[in-house]
Amino acid sequence: MAVYTEVPDSALSAFLDAYDLGTLLSYKGIAEGVENTNFFLHTTAGNFILTLYEKRVNEADLPFFLNLMEHLARRGLACPQPVRNRQGEALGRLCGRPAVIVSFLDGVSVKVPGVDQCRALGQALAALHAAGRDFGMTRANSLSVSAWRPLFAQAEHQADSVSPGLAARTRADLDLLESAWPTGLPGGVIHADLFTDNVFFIGEDLSGLIDFYFACTDAFAYDLAICLNAWCFSPDGSFHRDRAAALIAGYEAVRPLEAAEVEALPILARGAALRFMLTRLVDWLNVPPGALVQPKDPREYDRRLTFHRQARDARDYGRA
Amino acid sequence: MAVYTEVPDSALSAFLDAYDLGTLLSYKGIAEGVENTNFFLHTTAGNFILTLYEKRVNEADLPFFLNLMEHLARRGLACPQPVRNRQGEALGRLCGRPAVIVSFLDGVSVKVPGVDQCRALGQALAALHAAGRDFGMTRANSLSVSAWRPLFAQAEHQADSVSPGLAARTRADLDLLESAWPTGLPGGVIHADLFTDNVFFIGEDLSGLIDFYFACTDAFAYDLAICLNAWCFSPDGSFHRDRAAALIAGYEAVRPLEAAEVEALPILARGAALRFMLTRLVDWLNVPPGALVQPKDPREYDRRLTFHRQARDARDYGRA
Repeated sequence: MAVYTEVPDSALSAFLDAYDLGTLLSYKGIAEGVENTNFFLHTTAGNFILTLYEKRVNEADLPFFLNLMEHLARRGLACPQPVRNRQGEALGRLCGRPAVIVSFLDGVSVKVPGVDQCRALGQALAALHAAGRDFGMTRANSLSVSAWRPLFAQAEHQADSVSPGLAARTRADLDLLESAWPTGLPGGVIHADLFTDNVFFIGEDLSGLIDFYFACTDAFAYDLAICLNAWCFSPDGSFHRDRAAALIAGYEAVRPLEAAEVEALPILARGAALRFMLTRLVDWLNVPPGALVQPKDPREYDRRLTFHRQARDARDYGRA
Repeated sequence: MAVYTEVPDSALSAFLDAYDLGTLLSYKGIAEGVENTNFFLHTTAGNFILTLYEKRVNEADLPFFLNLMEHLARRGLACPQPVRNRQGEALGRLCGRPAVIVSFLDGVSVKVPGVDQCRALGQALAALHAAGRDFGMTRANSLSVSAWRPLFAQAEHQADSVSPGLAARTRADLDLLESAWPTGLPGGVIHADLFTDNVFFIGEDLSGLIDFYFACTDAFAYDLAICLNAWCFSPDGSFHRDRAAALIAGYEAVRPLEAAEVEALPILARGAALRFMLTRLVDWLNVPPGALVQPKDPREYDRRLTFHRQARDARDYGRA
């Protein structure tokens, strides 16, 4: 949670002059978002979110993310919609950073998801995959299997200080995943980071998806595997089969999995867990001095890997 | 800027059940507020701020602050109004902290105030003093002159490490202020912390005052002296006579100063500067490990003191 960039009122006013958003009534820095600076913006035209992209976002990727959100919103998916200024541009600059205004999405994220919420998530994930099918741009997944060994190389010498035996476990996982990683699965646009903070509910209803800044082109079932990890385990590593069954059933109610996807599910889930364990491990070992953000614990994903290593097929994930 | 207390959605939902605020649509932690945790709250009943009081606020003082905000709002002052729950209580508990919901106030705070904004501030400050006249409660100013020497005692041995000569300068200021501090000036409820972040504007118009958690019973002219320090100097210590003249003129357009207040203005301004220098100095020297908040620089107020020490009368502050 952090505001990395302070925006003076005078700079914001000048920035907003390029938009048709009426008078600025209020703006407040939001204590969320690990990667970027976000402001809640209230104008006579409504509520918005202003995002300043900090150094971890590659500016060259922004057109993909922004066009994708516009595309998905046009297809009826509830997600933030970039606001274009009078020149027709969605991407601007503010305080030296790339900056974008998007529509404000109501909803509350759950900390501990229930079965019904997992089912709703599955449906929304499949709807997202369907809505992205005719999106014209692509973006390689820069955090897929080929990126994991170089990531691990940054942390390998200190891995055992985080958890005894972690280095050896990770080397074995990498060997297996690199040789067994499935190719040719049905794919397209995936969210790739659909953690609970990025899914909004109003009452019992899923009201929207946010934070498309890891979206990329990859296997649909890998996105499902990321959600299995993010939604169906407790921090202590215990697996909630009922949630996983509901998540998969919700997904398949909209888009049934193909046989190859069902077969690949355990390896995809194991890979997804390793991906998040590795990025968390690198962040954990490299907290900058004066950091505004508490790094997430890589051991939560190390514990999930214990489950994945013993899973034999999709039935172990609650698929009927 | 910080969210000191994470509030799970389930805890918030249970808390809101006691209020008539409809369905929760959104809540986001706000990266503002040095003392407390604040959330922006959107429900079907409107926009609100939820505040959790952290350890620096004395719980016994909360009824004073909350009743004051209700009183001032009833007198037509634009300030946050506490929302009472179905039991008629404004003060609740959430995540082990005292917690209050107040109405959301639109407006934007300026970083570098202009002359017109200073005049508007002066008018609003006098209106606040008038609106508080018939408020039934009192609260001693726990950060007035008698508190300064004990505060300094916590920092004296390290003061020169912050700015050479600061310890000797402060001892001399304390000696003078303790002997010359005025008593018997007109007084009542003062805000006591009306920095630019606590004053909102929409366009050119002052739209409201917030953050009454230093409010107390003290001399009205001392509140004006705090504003002179907060609004009429640059961080480098340079004094903006035009802003100060407008601030005082705005104040006197609503409530003319008495002769004793005019005479006391230089010593009050000097005392106000010392008060903020001292609390900043103590915070500066005691940043807790893992602090989420960057402490404010006490030297900004040391530099203002250089101006105050050479001021002879209220004309030096731009009073006609």
